[in-house]
Amino acid sequence: MSSRIERLRELLEEPLLITNPVNVLYLTGLDSSNAALLVEPGRTRLFTDFRYIEAAQAVDGVETVQTKRSLITWLAEELNGRYGFEANVLPWSFAEELRAGGLELVPRKGLVERLRVVKDEGELESFRRACAVTDRMFERLVSDVPFVGRPERDVAWDITQLYHEEGAGGEAFEAIVGSGPTGARPHARAGDRVIEPGELVVIDTGCIVDGYASDYTRTLATGDLDGEMREAYDVVLAAQQAGLEAIRAGATGVGVDAAARDVIESSDFAGTFGHGLGHGLGLDVHEAPRLSTESSDTLAAGNVVTVEPGVYLGGRFGIRIEDDVIVTEDGIENPVRFTKELLTVR
Amino acid sequence: MSSRIERLRELLEEPLLITNPVNVLYLTGLDSSNAALLVEPGRTRLFTDFRYIEAAQAVDGVETVQTKRSLITWLAEELNGRYGFEANVLPWSFAEELRAGGLELVPRKGLVERLRVVKDEGELESFRRACAVTDRMFERLVSDVPFVGRPERDVAWDITQLYHEEGAGGEAFEAIVGSGPTGARPHARAGDRVIEPGELVVIDTGCIVDGYASDYTRTLATGDLDGEMREAYDVVLAAQQAGLEAIRAGATGVGVDAAARDVIESSDFAGTFGHGLGHGLGLDVHEAPRLSTESSDTLAAGNVVTVEPGVYLGGRFGIRIEDDVIVTEDGIENPVRFTKELLTVR
Repeated sequence: MSSRIERLRELLEEPLLITNPVNVLYLTGLDSSNAALLVEPGRTRLFTDFRYIEAAQAVDGVETVQTKRSLITWLAEELNGRYGFEANVLPWSFAEELRAGGLELVPRKGLVERLRVVKDEGELESFRRACAVTDRMFERLVSDVPFVGRPERDVAWDITQLYHEEGAGGEAFEAIVGSGPTGARPHARAGDRVIEPGELVVIDTGCIVDGYASDYTRTLATGDLDGEMREAYDVVLAAQQAGLEAIRAGATGVGVDAAARDVIESSDFAGTFGHGLGHGLGLDVHEAPRLSTESSDTLAAGNVVTVEPGVYLGGRFGIRIEDDVIVTEDGIENPVRFTKELLTVR
Repeated sequence: MSSRIERLRELLEEPLLITNPVNVLYLTGLDSSNAALLVEPGRTRLFTDFRYIEAAQAVDGVETVQTKRSLITWLAEELNGRYGFEANVLPWSFAEELRAGGLELVPRKGLVERLRVVKDEGELESFRRACAVTDRMFERLVSDVPFVGRPERDVAWDITQLYHEEGAGGEAFEAIVGSGPTGARPHARAGDRVIEPGELVVIDTGCIVDGYASDYTRTLATGDLDGEMREAYDVVLAAQQAGLEAIRAGATGVGVDAAARDVIESSDFAGTFGHGLGHGLGLDVHEAPRLSTESSDTLAAGNVVTVEPGVYLGGRFGIRIEDDVIVTEDGIENPVRFTKELLTVR
């Protein structure tokens, strides 16, 4: 952890006050909802309240300071000087409170994220293990779990249980189980809808291993599909393959997105892929870099990104296929083993 | 929902841009990680991206507008005029981006929270049901679940399963199972420590019913305790009772905290209660009003608050007892049925 603080220090033009809890976790290992880290030349202070102070004192290489519960108010009273702050995280009124307390603030963005975006080998190993657990969960889901005649939310609970049995530290997010028309809403939760035969079910789920997330999507059939559904599945699969093939260090988020998007746009399903192709994955389920029409990112070796094109026909069905891959100098390492063939479940 | 928007409108001096996702949920019923609500005189617009647009279109009484994924950037380009914004939520750089786009921004704090803090009957009914589920979970936990010889995290998983079986919509937060010295760290997660006989185990857990959270703590014994542990338990229980008795509409957060704190401070365990007495509970697990030495809140009928004093002896043990209560004009309604007697589990 302390080598991460050293690398951060090299990026700084002035001391940096870090208030994003995930960034504090990345730099110190402390998992707290109320902590701040101040990185100065030759000195690092970790501020938190009574509830987390024992855990904070176990962090190597930092001075621990116990604050009031109102951490920002306390910092405004105690600190003086010129500091960078995480302007894309800290709420406006907290920045103003620090200013009113006499601090000279310099807005900074994405400094810790610049480190986080390139995973080290330990992080990649946690990620690969999260993928291995997710692979085993999916294998058991499609072989052991009944779908037809059950509400989506019951399948979501089965996913929760399977992850636990396979050794996950928890779910990365509440699993999406979108059957039939529900699948056409990309972020619909698992609900009360009872899954019917002959439809498509979008399963979007991930788990956590040692803090690192996986994020897969597979779309399953519950019986014979009509020709349009099968055609759409093939288009999404081809788009995903095109996206995967476009990834390498130096490729742009816009370019990779376009490689997949073009496949859909030149098909009968043009105009039905309304979201970005993918996002970075790590301690957060959504982090840099982005693969989308709006992205300003360029990929680097050690990035971890999702690749998840979809086709959504409102009121009818949705299809999405998602892997998570590690960017390498000349392509990808794809740790996702679970099949992308169209599977039929019962 | 739309009556909530009407009541909010009465509080506004200028149109308000709402970006806190929980506030958007409260006002519209839309549960989205990327949405904004603009409440103007005679007009309400709900902005979100493709992923949530179908769900947004189902909201009554608002105009739905589909934006880019970069919602704030989109708003900066599209909106003009003078707007209040949620200054305690919106990150500093987003406010600056809106300003740079030509909006005149007025920082506002806690306007929607002012409504949320007083629960209506429907909200209270969801809360009571969350408490009823939590009561049943605890009854089964202490009668059916083995503690001694098992890691804390296995007990936490049993809690997860019991909630599911009892009909919870999920857990309000990851359950804390703090055995022996772990219990002395108020926010320690359930870990690998194996629970031993003759110690104390702090169980802090809650569930969600229809979006509303419960949040209980009980401290259980795993066999005969020494005299100091029993004495500390009685002190915490007496402090909790004093806190509960101090609550009524018009009481201050500082005053209620002091009523409980004084019991501990005048005991052999003075100085060991390092956190606030309680917090509001609703769509968020931590919301207004606060019961603490730092609180500026005054209680009102319809508030829901936790009352959770504790004694923490670093490296040895912790004790916390927590109920959730509804504030009434002349006292409280306490929907928590599970016993606060010191129970021994196996």
